[in-house]
Amino acid sequence: MILSQNKNIPLTIGILGGGQLAKMLSIEAYRLGLNVAIIEKGDNTPAGDMTKLNYTNGWFNTSDINEFIRISDIITLENEFIPITMLEYIETSKNIFPSSDTMKLVQDKYIQKMTFRNNSIAVPNFAEIKSLNALYNFAEIYGYPFIIKTRTLGYDGYGNMTINNENDCEIALNKFDGKSIMAEEFVRFEKEVAVIVARNISGEVAIYPCVETIQKNHICHKVIAPADVDASISNKAKDIAQKAVASINGIGVFGVEMFVTNDSKVLLNEIAPRPHNSGHYTIEGCYCSQYENGIRAILNLPLGSTEMKHKFACMINLLGENDGPGIPKDITNVLKFKHTKLHLYNKKQSRKGRKMGHITTIGDNYDEVLKEAEDCFNSIVW
Amino acid sequence: MILSQNKNIPLTIGILGGGQLAKMLSIEAYRLGLNVAIIEKGDNTPAGDMTKLNYTNGWFNTSDINEFIRISDIITLENEFIPITMLEYIETSKNIFPSSDTMKLVQDKYIQKMTFRNNSIAVPNFAEIKSLNALYNFAEIYGYPFIIKTRTLGYDGYGNMTINNENDCEIALNKFDGKSIMAEEFVRFEKEVAVIVARNISGEVAIYPCVETIQKNHICHKVIAPADVDASISNKAKDIAQKAVASINGIGVFGVEMFVTNDSKVLLNEIAPRPHNSGHYTIEGCYCSQYENGIRAILNLPLGSTEMKHKFACMINLLGENDGPGIPKDITNVLKFKHTKLHLYNKKQSRKGRKMGHITTIGDNYDEVLKEAEDCFNSIVW
Repeated sequence: MILSQNKNIPLTIGILGGGQLAKMLSIEAYRLGLNVAIIEKGDNTPAGDMTKLNYTNGWFNTSDINEFIRISDIITLENEFIPITMLEYIETSKNIFPSSDTMKLVQDKYIQKMTFRNNSIAVPNFAEIKSLNALYNFAEIYGYPFIIKTRTLGYDGYGNMTINNENDCEIALNKFDGKSIMAEEFVRFEKEVAVIVARNISGEVAIYPCVETIQKNHICHKVIAPADVDASISNKAKDIAQKAVASINGIGVFGVEMFVTNDSKVLLNEIAPRPHNSGHYTIEGCYCSQYENGIRAILNLPLGSTEMKHKFACMINLLGENDGPGIPKDITNVLKFKHTKLHLYNKKQSRKGRKMGHITTIGDNYDEVLKEAEDCFNSIVW
Repeated sequence: MILSQNKNIPLTIGILGGGQLAKMLSIEAYRLGLNVAIIEKGDNTPAGDMTKLNYTNGWFNTSDINEFIRISDIITLENEFIPITMLEYIETSKNIFPSSDTMKLVQDKYIQKMTFRNNSIAVPNFAEIKSLNALYNFAEIYGYPFIIKTRTLGYDGYGNMTINNENDCEIALNKFDGKSIMAEEFVRFEKEVAVIVARNISGEVAIYPCVETIQKNHICHKVIAPADVDASISNKAKDIAQKAVASINGIGVFGVEMFVTNDSKVLLNEIAPRPHNSGHYTIEGCYCSQYENGIRAILNLPLGSTEMKHKFACMINLLGENDGPGIPKDITNVLKFKHTKLHLYNKKQSRKGRKMGHITTIGDNYDEVLKEAEDCFNSIVW
């Protein structure tokens, strides 16, 4: 593909969303000499502050969305919650990747799981739930505890509930009244792993290493690359991730989260149709980051190497500890760690559990990398 | 230093200039969660396009410069040609690094060389030139050829002339009529080398590896890190670079260019009081780039490690080949090189010799790194 498409100016990448993922996408786009347009409600968003082409009334504002579409040569997104009708509207004039067809298969977690199951991809057992009886039936087959999830809009544990008994079933139905829900068996996993996959318009695929993700309170706390698992497991995970992205005809970059069970099964948990927290480490860790490959993919450029530059990388999220300013009180000590990179997202307000930044440590010694990451993490003053 | 200075918003770094150096500084500032303000004449500059805080009428426009100063918490620069009076004006209300005192010692190359000589730093022989006789005298002492330089505003060979005989002396005096000039002996160097030095407000210093710079038509073509020289030479170069920056009380990041003579002397050629082309390689090549350390330095934060991540790095400039669009016709092949990163500056117009982008290859095998960089460079289609 010719980058300029015979225009005398570089392409403008439009991004739906202005958070940290859009910010890190923007940085890679800028490095490649591209322009960036951001649409996101709010005057000061992490990515919106980085461009003049910032539409701050959000995508439901007709004049903003139309101007955003007009100025963008190609459009992508940083979150999966954009209404399909909006994506279809955009597609009447510009290409958006992932496409509305892909997003239809991802946005509703029940349809997502059905799609994977229909493509012979191993997933935990699940069922659509429309009544209390359906819940009791699910419990009878798979036992307690199990999980109820809203089919749409859930993230970081929001929209999930663990069901331990019949009483919980009733509570859950009331709690999620009016929402479409599904039930999913409780997977007793040994590890959670993830694989980032980029796939361009021609179908070329770049598969990143299988990494271990460690959650705290349902939010990603730490990522260790590569995951300390047998090659048979990591190969299985990479195979599942690649098949999952192909099964939804995904174009762009995708984060695929999986469970590794005690008996060495790998089950697909969820797919994110965008750069993913489990792939932050690729900025310092790999020759070509998930962000750069996301941009290459939607421009149908050759994908970059997913090879790691050093043997190991460890990423730790910096979560807000309470309501307050968006930046730490002191980063002096953080900056003293030699092999660790600090990323702060420039969010204007912090709140408990909000993703405010992250650190990534790289190196060739597993123990040293993990220790430096932990020590650095503990040195930040909020 | 506390990054927020007790304000509930992050600091804004103001940069005088909107070119590629400001762009790469901005990217690092953004990663650290800072805001960026750019003042540079013109609507579409590489760094100006990356922020809403872009003052496009330039620093001679009173309302623009005042608003730029007001919005910036701390100010730095990407070129050495800003009038001292402007820097002094800025200093009446905000800190700028490098300071006007430093810039006074750098901007005039005669004063620069005098300062270094007075601090026992080896420089080529030179003299102030105010008459034809002074030129003849210089020739008598040091012989032909020698170099005439304008004392201010020269770069990439502009403002330089090689003097081969008495006739050239007259031509040069006419050519540079009305400008302050100096003469400098012609150094028969074996190699040109450079060292990047960052120095923060507390005087902490970070010294990068000694690299070899290869010029074509007086413009940097290629940088090889580290330079293939004896340790005694590279240590001498690093020592000179550090002393040079200290001698001008430099705060920020500096590129120090030196000659290595046939008899293993190291002579300081010139200092650039800003991130330098010879330090582009530090983005991929070192744990902390010259751009990040430039920002840390002016915020008086601890400086990052200048250690190289791999044994070797090679940077090649992408210069415009003719007048035309600012981006290459085709980058497809460039992106196929696994260990090479492409940087395009998003300048709106190219012209012969203009710096439009660069590539950096990293790796542990000297020959492979140089070959990949050359092959990649040759694959770009303008």
